Amino acid sequence: MKIAIINGPNLNLLGQRETRIYGQQNFEDFLKALKAAFPKVEFSYFQSNIEGELIDALQTYGFEYDGIILNAAAYTHTSVGIGDAVKAIETPVIEVHISNIWSREPYRHQSFISPHVKGVIAGFGLDSYRLAVESFVRS
Amino acid sequence: MKIAIINGPNLNLLGQRETRIYGQQNFEDFLKALKAAFPKVEFSYFQSNIEGELIDALQTYGFEYDGIILNAAAYTHTSVGIGDAVKAIETPVIEVHISNIWSREPYRHQSFISPHVKGVIAGFGLDSYRLAVESFVRS
Amino acid sequence: MKIAIINGPNLNLLGQRETRIYGQQNFEDFLKALKAAFPKVEFSYFQSNIEGELIDALQTYGFEYDGIILNAAAYTHTSVGIGDAVKAIETPVIEVHISNIWSREPYRHQSFISPHVKGVIAGFGLDSYRLAVESFVRS
Amino acid sequence: MKIAIINGPNLNLLGQRETRIYGQQNFEDFLKALKAAFPKVEFSYFQSNIEGELIDALQTYGFEYDGIILNAAAYTHTSVGIGDAVKAIETPVIEVHISNIWSREPYRHQSFISPHVKGVIAGFGLDSYRLAVESFVRS
Amino acid sequence: MKIAIINGPNLNLLGQRETRIYGQQNFEDFLKALKAAFPKVEFSYFQSNIEGELIDALQTYGFEYDGIILNAAAYTHTSVGIGDAVKAIETPVIEVHISNIWSREPYRHQSFISPHVKGVIAGFGLDSYRLAVESFVRS
Amino acid sequence: MKIAIINGPNLNLLGQRETRIYGQQNFEDFLKALKAAFPKVEFSYFQSNIEGELIDALQTYGFEYDGIILNAAAYTHTSVGIGDAVKAIETPVIEVHISNIWSREPYRHQSFISPHVKGVIAGFGLDSYRLAVESFVRS
Amino acid sequence: MKIAIINGPNLNLLGQRETRIYGQQNFEDFLKALKAAFPKVEFSYFQSNIEGELIDALQTYGFEYDGIILNAAAYTHTSVGIGDAVKAIETPVIEVHISNIWSREPYRHQSFISPHVKGVIAGFGLDSYRLAVESFVRS
Amino acid sequence: MKIAIINGPNLNLLGQRETRIYGQQNFEDFLKALKAAFPKVEFSYFQSNIEGELIDALQTYGFEYDGIILNAAAYTHTSVGIGDAVKAIETPVIEVHISNIWSREPYRHQSFISPHVKGVIAGFGLDSYRLAVESFVRS
Amino acid sequence: MKIAIINGPNLNLLGQRETRIYGQQNFEDFLKALKAAFPKVEFSYFQSNIEGELIDALQTYGFEYDGIILNAAAYTHTSVGIGDAVKAIETPVIEVHISNIWSREPYRHQSFISPHVKGVIAGFGLDSYRLAVESFVRS
Amino acid sequence: MKIAIINGPNLNLLGQRETRIYGQQNFEDFLKALKAAFPKVEFSYFQSNIEGELIDALQTYGFEYDGIILNAAAYTHTSVGIGDAVKAIETPVIEVHISNIWSREPYRHQSFISPHVKGVIAGFGLDSYRLAVESFVRS
Amino acid sequence: MKIAIINGPNLNLLGQRETRIYGQQNFEDFLKALKAAFPKVEFSYFQSNIEGELIDALQTYGFEYDGIILNAAAYTHTSVGIGDAVKAIETPVIEVHISNIWSREPYRHQSFISPHVKGVIAGFGLDSYRLAVESFVRS
Amino acid sequence: MKIAIINGPNLNLLGQRETRIYGQQNFEDFLKALKAAFPKVEFSYFQSNIEGELIDALQTYGFEYDGIILNAAAYTHTSVGIGDAVKAIETPVIEVHISNIWSREPYRHQSFISPHVKGVIAGFGLDSYRLAVESFVRS
Repeated sequence: MKIAIINGPNLNLLGQRETRIYGQQNFEDFLKALKAAFPKVEFSYFQSNIEGELIDALQTYGFEYDGIILNAAAYTHTSVGIGDAVKAIETPVIEVHISNIWSREPYRHQSFISPHVKGVIAGFGLDSYRLAVESFVRS
Repeated sequence: MKIAIINGPNLNLLGQRETRIYGQQNFEDFLKALKAAFPKVEFSYFQSNIEGELIDALQTYGFEYDGIILNAAAYTHTSVGIGDAVKAIETPVIEVHISNIWSREPYRHQSFISPHVKGVIAGFGLDSYRLAVESFVRS
Repeated sequence: MKIAIINGPNLNLLGQRETRIYGQQNFEDFLKALKAAFPKVEFSYFQSNIEGELIDALQTYGFEYDGIILNAAAYTHTSVGIGDAVKAIETPVIEVHISNIWSREPYRHQSFISPHVKGVIAGFGLDSYRLAVESFVRS
Repeated sequence: MKIAIINGPNLNLLGQRETRIYGQQNFEDFLKALKAAFPKVEFSYFQSNIEGELIDALQTYGFEYDGIILNAAAYTHTSVGIGDAVKAIETPVIEVHISNIWSREPYRHQSFISPHVKGVIAGFGLDSYRLAVESFVRS
Repeated sequence: MKIAIINGPNLNLLGQRETRIYGQQNFEDFLKALKAAFPKVEFSYFQSNIEGELIDALQTYGFEYDGIILNAAAYTHTSVGIGDAVKAIETPVIEVHISNIWSREPYRHQSFISPHVKGVIAGFGLDSYRLAVESFVRS
Repeated sequence: MKIAIINGPNLNLLGQRETRIYGQQNFEDFLKALKAAFPKVEFSYFQSNIEGELIDALQTYGFEYDGIILNAAAYTHTSVGIGDAVKAIETPVIEVHISNIWSREPYRHQSFISPHVKGVIAGFGLDSYRLAVESFVRS
Repeated sequence: MKIAIINGPNLNLLGQRETRIYGQQNFEDFLKALKAAFPKVEFSYFQSNIEGELIDALQTYGFEYDGIILNAAAYTHTSVGIGDAVKAIETPVIEVHISNIWSREPYRHQSFISPHVKGVIAGFGLDSYRLAVESFVRS
Repeated sequence: MKIAIINGPNLNLLGQRETRIYGQQNFEDFLKALKAAFPKVEFSYFQSNIEGELIDALQTYGFEYDGIILNAAAYTHTSVGIGDAVKAIETPVIEVHISNIWSREPYRHQSFISPHVKGVIAGFGLDSYRLAVESFVRS
Repeated sequence: MKIAIINGPNLNLLGQRETRIYGQQNFEDFLKALKAAFPKVEFSYFQSNIEGELIDALQTYGFEYDGIILNAAAYTHTSVGIGDAVKAIETPVIEVHISNIWSREPYRHQSFISPHVKGVIAGFGLDSYRLAVESFVRS
Repeated sequence: MKIAIINGPNLNLLGQRETRIYGQQNFEDFLKALKAAFPKVEFSYFQSNIEGELIDALQTYGFEYDGIILNAAAYTHTSVGIGDAVKAIETPVIEVHISNIWSREPYRHQSFISPHVKGVIAGFGLDSYRLAVESFVRS
Repeated sequence: MKIAIINGPNLNLLGQRETRIYGQQNFEDFLKALKAAFPKVEFSYFQSNIEGELIDALQTYGFEYDGIILNAAAYTHTSVGIGDAVKAIETPVIEVHISNIWSREPYRHQSFISPHVKGVIAGFGLDSYRLAVESFVRS
Repeated sequence: MKIAIINGPNLNLLGQRETRIYGQQNFEDFLKALKAAFPKVEFSYFQSNIEGELIDALQTYGFEYDGIILNAAAYTHTSVGIGDAVKAIETPVIEVHISNIWSREPYRHQSFISPHVKGVIAGFGLDSYRLAVESFVRS
């Protein structure tokens, strides 16, 4: 089983910035633990701050992989283009968020991506990613 | 570990009504399978069509249990009172939805409950409940 | 032919309160006259001030009766849950209102129930109910 | 008893266009059946695609007839002028719609006419007209 | 003089939950003190988390008592039905709130009840109730 | 000096309908008095309930007359087309209203015509027309 | 006959500022001409940039004079207090504007004063004031 | 091939009014050139300022012609009825506009017609019509 | 104990204007009775129609007195500046209104002052002031 | 004559994804046919999923080419920056869309680009591009 | 060079109130330092809590001085009149704010003054004033 | 002291495009003059039309430099991601704009960046950058 994790803008700062909201673990360490926990899954990881590169990545993985876990971060709330890409590809996508986006600013309550995904998991810290893997693995 | 599952209005019809949206399994059968999968967890289950009885249930479990999984269904979008109850109790609450509420009517995109929960899991069918249990068990 | 009439909050005060808007007849007297006018119809009548009990009633009658006449009163404008119940059951529902809701406060112009009913009859006083029975009887 | 039926734009295509929404019967055939069913009522029928001619018709019938049944179709949602005419005349007006306008586009949920009519009947197909006649005849 | 106090959802948790906002006193203790302070007044007290039971209570006290003090809590902002009940009964109602609802979330700034009450007292902690009694006693 | 007066929908009922709002004088009588008061002015008068005929009239008078006094009545609030016609012609137009439209329904506070006229006179009863003539005569 | 003219903020700059919009005449010169044109009318004139002083003036003239001509300028669009004063006094008030406020910024289309005045005259330059006097003199 | 061109309100003034926006050519001259350019197409032309006559025309051509080119002008933004007619007929309709409606007033950005047409061409001056003919001819 | 009462625009007309809404008592007479009822309290009274003088008064009393009772009248709904002053001073402020502002125009439902006050008392006529004094005296 | 075609996000998937909406032809094949049809035109083609690269392309072609045909796809509805680029360059731009964007989601009805282009052509499938070339060639 | 500094409501409390937001320095001390730093500039200073007096001041300095630095404080967000004054005078105005108004309440994000000023400087504490002087001095 | 200047989309055209709004100087020339004026400051300059590269730049400079001057141009109004980056980094950011954005289109009045910056300077042409440097240098 092949799963791609795609992270959007500023998530490369994870573990460095605003640790009160996003926690203190950086994503690379978390990814190692995740791979250890699911040895049968082949993971790919991509991060970019550029909206269009996230669209490129969705198109690349979206016809080859079994599942995509997408945290589009800030682009969640403004990108019609990423939503269109999710809708256009064949691989099912799970939208994840580290924080509870509904307890933050109102403009973070709207998502252009949610209508097109298989499901949404938000608010569990990095554990949101693990639950998404669980969902792919057992479904 | 003690986990309460609280289901809101019309979820007693699960497996009977609108199976295209909600699937064909009824909740009682699903609950048996869930108990089998997590033998160390003690589950309680409560369903009501009455908003205030859901508040009562949240208050009952909310100081005694380790976790609450809440699918407030239609009340998600209209009940300030259930949101207040979630905020008032001590037990962490995970909000779940069977369907992807963001691909449905606009009034289902707003939740008075989300700002106060630990996390949200939506769109995975009944598997949304299982993922919520996973989250409680491993965190 | 079996028809259920379901009345929502404050309609138990009919004939007592605000007679300028709702008229002076109480519902029990009206129901007697209605039964006399349609001797072949078997009527059931249910009234409650509790939103969830109206959902319960819709679920009870909604798979057994030939028609439901629903005046959800104030819940018309706020209850996603009653709308969901109307959508979930098999029996066709006619929404009735005693007064002309569009000549009253703006928040009474919105209905969460109308999109799911067979038809709407409003503004004819208690005669709204009789017209609904007419519709069921002759269709 | 004299009742005028006034139909608005595109209703001359009834039975031809969009039969999935409006049914397959044309209005002339229906009118014959209606006259047969209510032999004591004298019916007048007027249809126009022109907003101002509907106002003219309301003014013509509105001081002479016992009742007007008005289906203003598309003008329901945009015409302050027809609403003003309904308010200005003496004959009571019943607003009817063939389809359930609340399960269609949002701009069809607003009516400039409803606040001024005796009552509204919508969603029963052409039977909406018959129920309106019933209301006039028995009230 | 007979005064009924009606409390809405989650107010049974008073003194337990969110004491930073609502204070540390529970309502029963406060009620004893209130009775002592107004020995000539006969008090009734009712609390429910169920919207419709609050409507029932308003109808029960609303034709027999001299005054009703209503803290509908969360239902203040969503219940057309309670507003309708206040308007339908004869006994004057004073709306009270423990906290200053205008310094909280925007959805708490709207009230479906206020337009129908004698007056509103908000923000004084439990003293809001005492001031309401003062108003009834001296007017 | 040639002045055209153009009246919109339902103004042919003046003196008959809603005399509490519009007064008891009909327009023909008023017009006679107006002609007597301004013997040097040549008046034309046109009334129609049809939006497009009002546009026709504006185009007809709009390149020949010295002034147009327009009371578009209900079309004031909905007609982009009449506004476009006023903008397209050469003759200056004064918008008049018999009643104070800002003390009436909110949808009467918006005008598609006002941005294109020379001036607006509203609320003076039929005297609004006389003041408009005054303005043309003396300017 | 006694008529007071009350001018609001920045109108003291008339003839100096933005002559493209407001014309080149200053108000004092205009006032002289006005007095000459209506020798039987006793005029008072008051201008202030202070909202509350305009309220004071309305209260002063509002029980003594036969008519008030009010150009509240910028306060037209923001002052509930001036609107309340107009409503509270006995003297009828005519609202005037020099420019056509509906062809300017959207926030100038709203008036808190219009609902309470006898009539509105706008867009005629300083001639708006003369027409208001005409209205008082002949009515 | 038979193509009907239907023009809405004020377009009869083309070449006369607001030539800065709409250009200096009148429509009759343009039509001659168009016929010359497409000798195999049979053109019909209809213009009216009356909304309902435009609906009549759509119904007339809409079951007989191969294509309709519609410039509903001001009615584009206000007419649900014309939109309904476009949807009801069988002939495909292309919506054209002479000017770029999105660089003009905001109320010109909304169209009740666009959702029902085959395509939209706007901003090319009278060339918009030619491009529409091109589209019909070659498709 | 020193309490200042600050009254905003048009409240100097109390007892004269709109007695149906505000009652027939003028404020000076009421103040005498209030002083008599609370002999131990030292009262100051200030009224102005000028927004900035109300800010001045809040600043003057706001560091010296034990309590301020503020009825900002019309400025309640438009003055960010008075709200800022209430927030800036040290003395607790109680906002009072004579009438029930929520049963009046929608623009009176918004308050820039409420978020910053200790509490709100509205709808009790002049008794609103007395209840505010009660609150200060006993707290 | 030199014409550049610039395509935005996800249009590289043309002919692969959502063929029900966008048709089955891929853009490269279409481009060949287009070049064949207009042998005298020199075409350049650029596609990117990255908003800023589309801006770069507009700046590159925008001072050298005779015309630009821009389908900004999803960025049409969110990109102020592309709109600014269109406004800043000298080459005229025609905005095209393959599908009828007004019969799709409401957020696709808004364009930040339209106000600055020469014209808009939408809904004709890939033929929208051909019509745009027609417009450039013949104007 | 002559520069006037005009401060609006509550800024006389600077250094006393809400020092967490506005800092601890009072304005008089700051002004001394400013004069020392710019010995060639002649400064005038005016502060008032009264909107109209700020308009007076703008008119006074607005035809005599070389620059005006305006902190209208709360009136920034509500005063059309001050905005009109800025637009009417000849002296260029720089709008300054001590705090970052966009990180505060939403109603502080709107300014009626900004559209008419030369520039805006906000968020730098009292240093905002110094930067404004810099701008005048060097431009 | 190290200061980075980051410029967003289309600012590379400075001095070429729309010189009426942005002035005639190109940025490179301005930068030279700036370096000459502040010889002790070490400047870095970065410009990109790509949103994500601006985020990259903020992250690069944001932990190393003493100050960042950011003109995000069009992205100011649409980019949640740049706002998040500003919030995530340690270096203080000053937002600058060349033109007065509040006298332009309404969508330019909203900024996703302002809430997170140290201060905003707008409307002074390129001098906005110099004032920002002044602020960093002297604070």
